Amino acid sequence: MVELIKKKRDGHILTTDEIKSIVAGFVDGSIPDYQIAAWLMAVFFQGMNDEETAALTDAMMRSGELIDLSPIPGIKVDKHSTGGVGDKTTLVLGPLVAAAGVVVAKMSGRGLGHTGGTLDKLESIPGFKVEMSPAEFVEKVLKHHIAICSQNERLVPADKQLYALRDVTGTVDNISLIASSVMSKKLACGADAIVIDLKVGDGAFIKTIEDAEKLAKIMIATAQRMGRQLIAVISGMEEPLGHAIGNALEVKEAIETLKGHGPEDLTELCLSLGSYMMMLAGKITDYEAGKDTLRRLIADGKALDKLVELVQSQGGDADYILHPERFEMAAYSKVYTAPQSGYISHLSAMDIGLASVKLGAGRETKESPIDYSAGIIMHKKVGDYVEQGDNLATLYASQPELFDGAFRYMDEAYTFSANKPEKQPLIFKTVY
Amino acid sequence: MVELIKKKRDGHILTTDEIKSIVAGFVDGSIPDYQIAAWLMAVFFQGMNDEETAALTDAMMRSGELIDLSPIPGIKVDKHSTGGVGDKTTLVLGPLVAAAGVVVAKMSGRGLGHTGGTLDKLESIPGFKVEMSPAEFVEKVLKHHIAICSQNERLVPADKQLYALRDVTGTVDNISLIASSVMSKKLACGADAIVIDLKVGDGAFIKTIEDAEKLAKIMIATAQRMGRQLIAVISGMEEPLGHAIGNALEVKEAIETLKGHGPEDLTELCLSLGSYMMMLAGKITDYEAGKDTLRRLIADGKALDKLVELVQSQGGDADYILHPERFEMAAYSKVYTAPQSGYISHLSAMDIGLASVKLGAGRETKESPIDYSAGIIMHKKVGDYVEQGDNLATLYASQPELFDGAFRYMDEAYTFSANKPEKQPLIFKTVY
Repeated sequence: MVELIKKKRDGHILTTDEIKSIVAGFVDGSIPDYQIAAWLMAVFFQGMNDEETAALTDAMMRSGELIDLSPIPGIKVDKHSTGGVGDKTTLVLGPLVAAAGVVVAKMSGRGLGHTGGTLDKLESIPGFKVEMSPAEFVEKVLKHHIAICSQNERLVPADKQLYALRDVTGTVDNISLIASSVMSKKLACGADAIVIDLKVGDGAFIKTIEDAEKLAKIMIATAQRMGRQLIAVISGMEEPLGHAIGNALEVKEAIETLKGHGPEDLTELCLSLGSYMMMLAGKITDYEAGKDTLRRLIADGKALDKLVELVQSQGGDADYILHPERFEMAAYSKVYTAPQSGYISHLSAMDIGLASVKLGAGRETKESPIDYSAGIIMHKKVGDYVEQGDNLATLYASQPELFDGAFRYMDEAYTFSANKPEKQPLIFKTVY
Repeated sequence: MVELIKKKRDGHILTTDEIKSIVAGFVDGSIPDYQIAAWLMAVFFQGMNDEETAALTDAMMRSGELIDLSPIPGIKVDKHSTGGVGDKTTLVLGPLVAAAGVVVAKMSGRGLGHTGGTLDKLESIPGFKVEMSPAEFVEKVLKHHIAICSQNERLVPADKQLYALRDVTGTVDNISLIASSVMSKKLACGADAIVIDLKVGDGAFIKTIEDAEKLAKIMIATAQRMGRQLIAVISGMEEPLGHAIGNALEVKEAIETLKGHGPEDLTELCLSLGSYMMMLAGKITDYEAGKDTLRRLIADGKALDKLVELVQSQGGDADYILHPERFEMAAYSKVYTAPQSGYISHLSAMDIGLASVKLGAGRETKESPIDYSAGIIMHKKVGDYVEQGDNLATLYASQPELFDGAFRYMDEAYTFSANKPEKQPLIFKTVY
């Protein structure tokens, strides 16, 4: 291993077999953490080329169980978001493209820190179960074209271990390590093709479009070397997506969106990602035609029907979908008002996310409980003009003493300007 | 610690307190090895400035016991060699400068790999004891002006631990880490001033004069920041020093040198290093005058007398010094002859060192036993003309089957040329 550390340290290319032996040795414990840590830092400085990244992705993917989706006919397309605030895309997109005939076999994660997780959002629907066996999962996908479950603990153990080590050794921010972490999980879940939503901005872990493009390119190259297809959509996460942040609140916004009354940014992102998923699944060849199909599925209620079907299939009470007013509201709410007049020129997704954690909607540590009813509804977003004292947002919590902590982040979140700011595009770029 | 790793990773300067906390956390186990390993690799890529290097040296020095040499009057000057093949300098230099009135309170190490260690060489003198308490050590230095003992296990634990980790994580080769390792040990041993013999070339761990100069500069800057003086002599270790390699063989060569009949290179290096030690000790101000004094001490027998005194003081049989023919010779010897005619244009110190290890004179691992009688006497060195079949060297071993392994390295060691090669200078440069 010392020789492999030195080889990378000195800027040489590691062979596929060398990378395989590093991952195998790390997982079986024969290579100690401190050698992996030194190697990770050498990778941080020297990088990895496409071939090395593909080898690492492949070795990580094979470190645990693999989900076999071959009993399901057709091209299995997965979608992955690198994480943001108010990102309820999967809740809309899953049923929407399933209604369009795309097979959605989705394994998701939970929220941590300022970003939420799809599983937590789904569990705010009473009765909804996210734990199931691979056999059950495949069966549900075959029957309903959609199932969303929790990622099996036995999938990609190398990624769990490696991420934990990267997190404490300052080696998270390397595009090859990020790409292999994301892709090994998606591929172990059986995806033939992937649409990646690369979030860029204040509330995302990727801060610049240049970095997102580099990551997109290495992901595409890695996918190609592994015989898979990948489209990367680079979208903004400067301000939160949509208006709702918090688990039940986001489910309700997703339902509204599936009815055609959702926020413009969320709707547009779902139509775009959905069209790319249809393309990869071989359903369409024209991007705009895909979006038209999806708009029609929303208009005629088929998309919402699919969400109802999904919820029923996984044990949830579908009456909540048909009557979202049934979702329990938090006992307390408090309005956050504009401290000054002017245009909102910046609205920090990170601060809004942290405020929602303070309200109980997210987790500070993996063990923290979640209050599904807590969260924030934003009434104004970037570009809106407000008078001092106007309602900017309503905060929801089950204990009134939580508002103080959340308000401190709200105070940091907004920036005002005298002139109308230029609105950033929702989607910066699509790379494929 | 993650923040400190990232700070160094991103090229920032760590404060003295930050470095102190890293060393303290490493030694007390509160910072895990994998974080130290990642930090070491970040240091490898980003380097450390003089202030950081001094802070690291100071923190390492204070990680364990400190030897208090204050009961001994005068400036305590230590000499350190970065290690080479056939480097018996301390055996000559110690008694020589002690005879000149310089206080020699020397803690030494053992050999490993292709380089030998002073302690092993001294222990080839029957009865010679290198283990003693700090109080005994100080008492002997006060009485005889010289004592050479084994480095106390309680000195600089941070360096032992850190070196072990660097060795297995590919982070040995960084000048700040090397400088702090060497200097923390010397300073913990109580040295007020240090002469460093930086060996450069095939048989040394520093391969180029440029690297040696960089290391010399950072050592001098570190010493200055810590209120100490340091002179660095950059000397060649392309071919072995002197003619003898192996423990008893090197003691015999040292005795010859103290009698004035030693090899030219060894004699010259000892006079030079000795003169710098006298300068730092405040005994002289003129380099050539120092060398003259040392030559006189050799000529009138005082230098050899001092070796006899040292050996007696540490329980050794001084009769071996007066009658070196008493040293037990290895049971077997075998001559290595020139495979072709020509000038010896290159003689690899590394290969000769490895050949001597194969004969039993050195250690492949820390636990290997040593055969004091084994080794090599070189009859020819770089620049000598030889005819095919001439004796190049005589090898000594206690088991005849060891010659084969040693001969394989001997075959690699010599390069011949038709024209007389330019002889490299013994001392490339002195930096202070």
